[in-house]
Amino acid sequence: MSKGVTFARGFRGAVAAAGVKHGVPERDDVAVIASDRPCTAAGLFTTNQVIAAPCVVTRRHLAAGTLRAIVVNSGNANACTGEQGEHDAVAMARAAAALVGSTPFEVAVASTGVIGVPLPVERIAKAVAGMKLSPDAGESVARAIMTTDTKPKLAQREVTLSRGSVRLGGVAKGAGMIHPQMATLLAFVTCDADVDAPTLRAALGSAADRTFNAISIDGDTSTNDMLLVVANGASGVTVGEPDLPAFTDALTTICADLAQQVVADGEGVTRVFEVHVRGALSDAEAKLAARTITTSNLVKTAIHGADPNWGRILAAAGRSGARVDQTRASVRIGDQAVYADGAPRVFDAAAVRRIFSAARIAIEVDLGVGAGEARAWGTDLSAEYVRINAEYTT
Amino acid sequence: MSKGVTFARGFRGAVAAAGVKHGVPERDDVAVIASDRPCTAAGLFTTNQVIAAPCVVTRRHLAAGTLRAIVVNSGNANACTGEQGEHDAVAMARAAAALVGSTPFEVAVASTGVIGVPLPVERIAKAVAGMKLSPDAGESVARAIMTTDTKPKLAQREVTLSRGSVRLGGVAKGAGMIHPQMATLLAFVTCDADVDAPTLRAALGSAADRTFNAISIDGDTSTNDMLLVVANGASGVTVGEPDLPAFTDALTTICADLAQQVVADGEGVTRVFEVHVRGALSDAEAKLAARTITTSNLVKTAIHGADPNWGRILAAAGRSGARVDQTRASVRIGDQAVYADGAPRVFDAAAVRRIFSAARIAIEVDLGVGAGEARAWGTDLSAEYVRINAEYTT
Repeated sequence: MSKGVTFARGFRGAVAAAGVKHGVPERDDVAVIASDRPCTAAGLFTTNQVIAAPCVVTRRHLAAGTLRAIVVNSGNANACTGEQGEHDAVAMARAAAALVGSTPFEVAVASTGVIGVPLPVERIAKAVAGMKLSPDAGESVARAIMTTDTKPKLAQREVTLSRGSVRLGGVAKGAGMIHPQMATLLAFVTCDADVDAPTLRAALGSAADRTFNAISIDGDTSTNDMLLVVANGASGVTVGEPDLPAFTDALTTICADLAQQVVADGEGVTRVFEVHVRGALSDAEAKLAARTITTSNLVKTAIHGADPNWGRILAAAGRSGARVDQTRASVRIGDQAVYADGAPRVFDAAAVRRIFSAARIAIEVDLGVGAGEARAWGTDLSAEYVRINAEYTT
Repeated sequence: MSKGVTFARGFRGAVAAAGVKHGVPERDDVAVIASDRPCTAAGLFTTNQVIAAPCVVTRRHLAAGTLRAIVVNSGNANACTGEQGEHDAVAMARAAAALVGSTPFEVAVASTGVIGVPLPVERIAKAVAGMKLSPDAGESVARAIMTTDTKPKLAQREVTLSRGSVRLGGVAKGAGMIHPQMATLLAFVTCDADVDAPTLRAALGSAADRTFNAISIDGDTSTNDMLLVVANGASGVTVGEPDLPAFTDALTTICADLAQQVVADGEGVTRVFEVHVRGALSDAEAKLAARTITTSNLVKTAIHGADPNWGRILAAAGRSGARVDQTRASVRIGDQAVYADGAPRVFDAAAVRRIFSAARIAIEVDLGVGAGEARAWGTDLSAEYVRINAEYTT
């Protein structure tokens, strides 16, 4: 089992049950990730204009300098909670700061759950005060931040750089409201390299663009999305200029691992499909087309039903805003060419059914106008998704 | 019962069973709407870059001058069918032209159904050749163009202008792939006024913007969307300058009637909700926010489950691209203020449940930044939608 955020040296974690959602402690719903020394940090936040209080507070704390801890609760998003919400997020930071012996400004705060309900911050603070940090809490932390996730999501990786080896570990929670820009609710990566904040920011931007920002479950961007990476230098290994590609690559691998776990565990998801768009006027247009295909309810339901109704794929590309030349476009599903050079092909419908019935599906679309390309990952839309989301707050 | 497209003088209709979808005639799936004299005409077509052959052909015929007939088939969209698709659409026009005694250029062609399957055009042409036009075929035409619609959609209206009264009648089919821009698959309005084409175009643009372009079922814009209005002058009443507002109003009423029928009969729809966005920076931003809310799967499933999870409404507005000031925004569901002046309100959750359980729901969102406003109509997302769309081609 992966040790997640406690894999890197100098990091510990703790969890507690505060009864955030229903007032009664039922399961662990508060977690702290702590470093034994100050960390450089970088973060990416929701692009939603309705921003949850913890995102506002954490962005402020990141700008102020180093971090010592991350405190997270599930069951309540502390979003659309007005001025009180910000006070509550700061109070969470204060509680975690007391636990790790830092200032509140050195604590990042994250929340996930129901929007618009005041946070039961006293219960959370009390739960944090009673915590015991442990180097073996990686999996418990992953479980405590889950909402409708069915599985904890952890990743770890050790990579050898020019001056020695460093460790990276990560945790994520997803399930619903998973969509670019920034396709995760919450993800935290810890690292024991000695790396400055600007380098960390550059590596994180590059890693996110090819991982978390290319997945979609339901097209809804949350108010609480947050991806943080913290580095505490406990390995004694400094990331120098020549190490940048390897370091970025390791971070990208961790993010890709977590992003794939998020998409595979999307609400009601039974299948994951990859859309590779080529022949677009630009990479940006390819991305637009790929994302539109992965979020089309008609494509998602066709894949759920293993229905070889490929016209919906091309139609989704056509409405995406990306330029398409339908007289030169082509569509492949797995190894089946269903549309090529502007005309439908005779294909083996039974074969396409089999391809669509697999847990992972590859779709290739050529827009026939240029050399731009991009990949995106989506999920099928099931009756189970509807059931989960029709009954969320209750 | 409404007479639909045969309500206006000088229009007749006919239907036939050609076995378009499965090769075996099961139900009427081809329809012709004919005028006993040439009509001025105006049309709006899909904005999807993957445009079905009938849309291409009809646009060309509209540009060439007057129309005498509209020929429509259901069961096959004749989309993504390459060059052959255009030949087939022209062949449909030729068959209808022979029936009404006009040139093929005076025939509009429309198709709806599965994408990417060659059109069985010989069967359609043969069915058209055997048709008998009748002034009582309004409802049969409405039934013949249905796909997954559960009800035929007809509307009619008589309006008194300065020089006499004129009649307008309409028919539409919807069900899936219903989304602005141009939120209908197919809609045809016939009218016995004497009105020139530029006037007709202006009136249609205005009518569509407030009706068909403000509804959404699943966010997917079809390759085949087509809204046509034809006017044959059989009433002997000319639409003069002073009649324009009344004429546009009558056309808007017909379109609104049909659009509301389309949205209420959306695939798996049990509830329709209206979103009224105010306080936006501009009407355009209000429209963006209203449409994003009506297409959010999370909002749609919450309404389906009568779940008072209003935060999803504000979160959808926040990701729409419209500017939102969350410290001044407010959200009302029916008569319940759930969020006001930047903070959540204590509200009666049971009352919101009751409001969400009604067949029609009113939601008001104030973005708190300006004076722009717009309305949009959406539907809940049900497990039944998933079932219908997972099994469409089979």
